[in-house]
Amino acid sequence: MKRIAFLLGAVLMVAGVVVSTGPAAGPANEEGAPAYVTSIPPGYRDWKWVSVAHEEGNLNSIGAVLANDVAIKAYREGKLPFPDGSIIAALHYSHTASEENDKVFGQPQSFVAGQPTNIQFMVKDSQKYAATGGWGFGHFSNGKPADAAFMKPCFPCHEQMKARDLVFTRYAP
Amino acid sequence: MKRIAFLLGAVLMVAGVVVSTGPAAGPANEEGAPAYVTSIPPGYRDWKWVSVAHEEGNLNSIGAVLANDVAIKAYREGKLPFPDGSIIAALHYSHTASEENDKVFGQPQSFVAGQPTNIQFMVKDSQKYAATGGWGFGHFSNGKPADAAFMKPCFPCHEQMKARDLVFTRYAP
Repeated sequence: MKRIAFLLGAVLMVAGVVVSTGPAAGPANEEGAPAYVTSIPPGYRDWKWVSVAHEEGNLNSIGAVLANDVAIKAYREGKLPFPDGSIIAALHYSHTASEENDKVFGQPQSFVAGQPTNIQFMVKDSQKYAATGGWGFGHFSNGKPADAAFMKPCFPCHEQMKARDLVFTRYAP
Repeated sequence: MKRIAFLLGAVLMVAGVVVSTGPAAGPANEEGAPAYVTSIPPGYRDWKWVSVAHEEGNLNSIGAVLANDVAIKAYREGKLPFPDGSIIAALHYSHTASEENDKVFGQPQSFVAGQPTNIQFMVKDSQKYAATGGWGFGHFSNGKPADAAFMKPCFPCHEQMKARDLVFTRYAP
């Protein structure tokens, strides 16, 4: 249990587009929609680093996954499921060529975190988020949470990673 | 002063190859070689996250830059030069396709941190490392430090980023 993948943002964004344009899209205020995370957990920018990922395709994203102390402990011990209180954050940015780096390298090869695109969270609370595997999902652009329709595909997608308690991202040594 | 690039590892590796094969390469135990970092600063895996980067070309690298509390404070305040005691770490991994992520996406697009390749450090000590701009450079593969010849190009390359106190990587918001 040393590595990690973070589809968090990526899958949500891809699937979100489908949901919001497809015939099966539900209204944002759909009754009975499962609870999701609507406020940004404080202090996440100070959390410990889990891993990085780069998504090509429409996402064109580079990002980092951070985790609070409860989640980092579980990651490092390889213990599943993650205990209540675990929070995992995925910070996404545009995968952007660095002109200043390329100049030093003498060739185009360097990509860095460009404009922030979104921040996503998984909050473990087995009671509150019982309907979505014990995890509350959150997606924030410019500090604002996504609506219920956008959040709908998070759980079914993450459920495919049941063997790792719905968490795609592996811990980088 | 919110962003950052990290050529740390990348440039060292590229330039290191040139130095170790070119006619100007000095012996590893060259007398008068400037001091560099030969032991891994403890606790670096717990430091705060600065940014990510992806290097194409021969490096094929994805990695994260972390910084200790002294350096993070300077980063966030945008104050230069970094004070003595600052340490910046760059953790590099093979830029590796994630089969398990791609399976969920339904297309090849996801790259994650694969095998660790090297860890690099910049340690600020304006006395000890006066000959190299106040920064001691370090490069470790499998926990072992590189030799003096390999380290030689670090300073002249980083010196090109004098405007940011020799630090390429910008802080990701």
